[in-house]
Amino acid sequence: MLVLVTYDVNTTDDAGKKRLRRVAKECVKHGQRVQCSVFECLLDASQCKTLQAALCRIIDLSKDSLRFYYIGNHYHTKIEHFGVKAGYDPEGTLIF
Amino acid sequence: MLVLVTYDVNTTDDAGKKRLRRVAKECVKHGQRVQCSVFECLLDASQCKTLQAALCRIIDLSKDSLRFYYIGNHYHTKIEHFGVKAGYDPEGTLIF
Repeated sequence: MLVLVTYDVNTTDDAGKKRLRRVAKECVKHGQRVQCSVFECLLDASQCKTLQAALCRIIDLSKDSLRFYYIGNHYHTKIEHFGVKAGYDPEGTLIF
Repeated sequence: MLVLVTYDVNTTDDAGKKRLRRVAKECVKHGQRVQCSVFECLLDASQCKTLQAALCRIIDLSKDSLRFYYIGNHYHTKIEHFGVKAGYDPEGTLIF
């Protein structure tokens, strides 16, 4: 199923910047970056739990936010895109 | 139906920062901010088209990115949240 992962990481300190990099790095392993803090991942239930656990270990639950949207298998008609396509360098210029 | 709106606005110049503020302002009229660049909107098809048109007028299609995810009416079981809840001041400290 398609799982959409969105996150906000509080980057007001260096520890936050590090968490942001680690969250992105973990998400890259599991799916496709479509926007700066938005990933689309094709996962089964078990893979999804693994990703959730990994991200929850990285983020600071008292400062950051993580959302999972379960879009299902018939997702092609459920997504519309406008503007530039994703092609982010996680280490590059910040675009949000 | 629940429509998820996510966006990336290129804020490398002042015009971009202005677009970002305008996009957020428009989204606030139509739904609930759940993360910095993520809104959940309860819209019918007509309202959704109106929002799309408004946002496409604001963004720079050659620089920014806008995605709509149609989550449907039975969305309560399709969303999971971890960490802090949303409560953003669009004019406040940037969290992404």
